Amino acid sequence: MGAHDGHTVQSFEDELTQLTNVIVRMGGLAEAQMASAIHAITRRDSDLASRVIAGDSKVDEMEKEVHALTVRLLALRQPMADDLRSIVAALKISADIERIGDYAANVAKRAMVLNQLPQVTPVAGIPGMGRMVQQIINDVLDAYVERDVEKALAVWHRDEDVDAMHMALFRELLTYMMEDPRNITACTHLMFIAKNIERIGDHATNIAETIHFLVKGQSILLPRPKGASVDEMPMPETGA
Amino acid sequence: MGAHDGHTVQSFEDELTQLTNVIVRMGGLAEAQMASAIHAITRRDSDLASRVIAGDSKVDEMEKEVHALTVRLLALRQPMADDLRSIVAALKISADIERIGDYAANVAKRAMVLNQLPQVTPVAGIPGMGRMVQQIINDVLDAYVERDVEKALAVWHRDEDVDAMHMALFRELLTYMMEDPRNITACTHLMFIAKNIERIGDHATNIAETIHFLVKGQSILLPRPKGASVDEMPMPETGA
Repeated sequence: MGAHDGHTVQSFEDELTQLTNVIVRMGGLAEAQMASAIHAITRRDSDLASRVIAGDSKVDEMEKEVHALTVRLLALRQPMADDLRSIVAALKISADIERIGDYAANVAKRAMVLNQLPQVTPVAGIPGMGRMVQQIINDVLDAYVERDVEKALAVWHRDEDVDAMHMALFRELLTYMMEDPRNITACTHLMFIAKNIERIGDHATNIAETIHFLVKGQSILLPRPKGASVDEMPMPETGA
Repeated sequence: MGAHDGHTVQSFEDELTQLTNVIVRMGGLAEAQMASAIHAITRRDSDLASRVIAGDSKVDEMEKEVHALTVRLLALRQPMADDLRSIVAALKISADIERIGDYAANVAKRAMVLNQLPQVTPVAGIPGMGRMVQQIINDVLDAYVERDVEKALAVWHRDEDVDAMHMALFRELLTYMMEDPRNITACTHLMFIAKNIERIGDHATNIAETIHFLVKGQSILLPRPKGASVDEMPMPETGA
């Protein structure tokens, strides 16, 4: 930054701080959207679900705000090295948060359908999975503000726990569907809800990887931890 | 570009062309991955499925190549206005293609599970949906190379047809599951496969939106066309 005078450097740093702030607010909103979507399921509250669906446009707007800020910084400041990496990281992280918001809205849409169907027992597995992923989002945002690689890596490793919880819930849902075809409709929606929550966890893991790249200047060199995935699970034999 | 001499301008344009070329090759690969994943289902070919799964790393590598090229162009060329927009668009489009590759690999993973289960009739709906989305990817890549907004808008509108086909297939699968619990396992995998194909279509729609932004300098102002979505569908009453 030697080429800049003190005033310009300060102002550029202010702008980078502003960028971080918008992203953290955006992340907090997406986290709240996810928490509300899950409440909408457990409390069978369709009004809450429709507020979550409407609220997604706010997350989208904030992504546009990040996008405009980064384009402005790139164009006017022509940053190099660390600063350039901060800006590219901001773009990537905001894209992940935007997707988290989309998945939360999707959970809310399915909550509205579920609320019109008789309640099924395996719904009880959703809040636990939701709490785990909410904590992960919260921690990864902290890691971003603090530029804390250790915290980011801890988040990154926890994706395995989310996958394990997802797998257990998926099996439970499948069993319920096989026991009684009246459960099928609600259970397919719960399967997609669980999948959406698992995907939210994946995006938090992406953010952890971006923080590593941002702070260390290189990618995480470990293979991504993956518990057994539902996509490949050996399925239980169907009954009858 | 007035400040540059002829040589530098030529070379920067070469680099932008190179960027477009990498993206188009990457898109072609992702399209081929999707087509192969669907063949792996219809032909019950698990070897093909495992090649698709292994091939995803090539798509990921190409995204990294695009990323490195754009960071280089931003750092060394400090582009403004149209050129800056080209580079931001390249980053966004490559992220969408990378996701298309992920969904194709996911379809292939589920194909391997499906191939171990007895075949179910509704599998017949998958190739038609696959062909439609493959055509859409093909067209959106053409629109990108040609910077053709009309073609991009035509792709954008076709997302509605994909949603309609997805909805019809989802209903058919649900009916099958209710008729015979022995179909449940295979049908839940087919539901997620259909959802993945629908998501691939969404990413092609994102690319169409990016092309509009790239060429016109502003977003599409129409609301995104959405057929009735499975996420919100009024579900048929379960039998019994």
